Amino acid sequence: MSLLVVGTIAFDSVETPYDRRDVTLGGSATHFAHAAAHFGPVRLVGIVGEDFPDEHLAGFRKRNIDCAGVEVSKGKTFAWGGRYEADWNTRHTLFTDLNVLERFEPKIPDAHRDTEYVFLANGTPSVQLQALSQMTAPKLVVADTMNLWIDIARGDLFEVLRRVDGIVLNDEEARMLTDERNLIRAARKTLELGPKFVILKKGEHGAFLVGQGVHFGLPAYPVDDVVDPTGAGDSFAGGFMGYLASVNNTQPHTLRRAMLYGTVTASFCVEGFSIESLAARTRSDIETRYNELASICTL
Amino acid sequence: MSLLVVGTIAFDSVETPYDRRDVTLGGSATHFAHAAAHFGPVRLVGIVGEDFPDEHLAGFRKRNIDCAGVEVSKGKTFAWGGRYEADWNTRHTLFTDLNVLERFEPKIPDAHRDTEYVFLANGTPSVQLQALSQMTAPKLVVADTMNLWIDIARGDLFEVLRRVDGIVLNDEEARMLTDERNLIRAARKTLELGPKFVILKKGEHGAFLVGQGVHFGLPAYPVDDVVDPTGAGDSFAGGFMGYLASVNNTQPHTLRRAMLYGTVTASFCVEGFSIESLAARTRSDIETRYNELASICTL
Repeated sequence: MSLLVVGTIAFDSVETPYDRRDVTLGGSATHFAHAAAHFGPVRLVGIVGEDFPDEHLAGFRKRNIDCAGVEVSKGKTFAWGGRYEADWNTRHTLFTDLNVLERFEPKIPDAHRDTEYVFLANGTPSVQLQALSQMTAPKLVVADTMNLWIDIARGDLFEVLRRVDGIVLNDEEARMLTDERNLIRAARKTLELGPKFVILKKGEHGAFLVGQGVHFGLPAYPVDDVVDPTGAGDSFAGGFMGYLASVNNTQPHTLRRAMLYGTVTASFCVEGFSIESLAARTRSDIETRYNELASICTL
Repeated sequence: MSLLVVGTIAFDSVETPYDRRDVTLGGSATHFAHAAAHFGPVRLVGIVGEDFPDEHLAGFRKRNIDCAGVEVSKGKTFAWGGRYEADWNTRHTLFTDLNVLERFEPKIPDAHRDTEYVFLANGTPSVQLQALSQMTAPKLVVADTMNLWIDIARGDLFEVLRRVDGIVLNDEEARMLTDERNLIRAARKTLELGPKFVILKKGEHGAFLVGQGVHFGLPAYPVDDVVDPTGAGDSFAGGFMGYLASVNNTQPHTLRRAMLYGTVTASFCVEGFSIESLAARTRSDIETRYNELASICTL
């Protein structure tokens, strides 16, 4: 198996109703890679500035995350700041400093171009396409996106949708993309745009998978204490793709199990700031929670 | 098996973003009974005014709903009016005319006092207690409630909670009752108040069952076109209790199946105004949708 992610590596500054962290390790690819690395090696493609500490890269490598595709560029690392309200669902972006991300042109290392499982984390659709065009033998490509690209880069995003196997959306994005309030209809309309399956994330309300020959829904894992929801969606995708890559199978019953693994890695993610909780867990912790979640879901 | 419901029978006037119905058959016990009657006979206890058409009562009886416990009282039937916003989650109560409901003192017919499965639909907790005190051999008692009683009749409601086996709450009620935002913790706190299990309804986001030795969660059935959500919670309870009574078993695996049946009857309820869609379905329709939902939930 081989798994590659293209996305952001960032410095996050997060305020919650209970606590805060400044300039902590974040970014879509960071969260994805730390979730997926529990299942096997991950190839990371992204860009950081000269201010990005070597110890972070060493930390990635220690966790089986290959950083050959991480470009260190002149300038500062992408930085994001956000604040959550007490309901956890309302998030205010306080700042977005693109910095080196502004000139990010993903270069997939030659040795990584034959990767079979590819995740295009949230980013400019044109950058996602640029990365995808360098892959020589993708077996399963899944992309994430956000409302901004649905709004300002719809043409490129539609091209992404035509070229990927799966797309990950939250409820708001699905409605915005399809102009359809009902989520199931929104998912079906999304399928008409190209992908074989759609994953609909509903945060604390769980997730849905709708695709050719598969329709699966499950609740979120009941987390007692949410610390920081940042990265939950990327950690979901990491657990989902990491599991699929590890078993090298994309049959409906495997996709269902992958949804549970994604739910589990997302639940670990929200129990800490940055990658703190996710990185502190073992594969055995994941299996324990998987079994617990399976028992909650099972008839 | 025997199943009894105490609750309201009403004239509902409902406005949705797409349509409206004036003075249509409604009420918590009405919806519950029509959902539960798909599984076996139901004993209905409630009050109506002299204006309540005989054909409605005949309709109940035709559907295996015993109306011996329905009191016809001088005055007008309880009437409720509400309007839904386009998100379906925001409901404005336009009017509540208690009418005969104001002097409702439930009298359980002698022949019905030995009923084994009892549902205390939403109503004044003192009325729920009055009904419950007349039951001689209840095997499973489940109650519903609402924010109003949590607010103004907390003492009586706590007495209800001490005396029932199960309580049905929506997320807002659970939070209000326990002063706890996290729904799982709210459910656990509710268990400390007496009941053996709590059903947490989250509308379009599904439902949870948390109790001694059981924790189960499932998504809502993906309804394509919602017509009117009024009565969804009571129809859920009707399918849940109707199934339990029909198999006369309250083991955890039966409770899990009952959650699916409740989800199915609720989904039929919201596909029409009043009891239109629910009453038009057959047990076979219910089984078909049950299997579909089971396949969506099953790993």
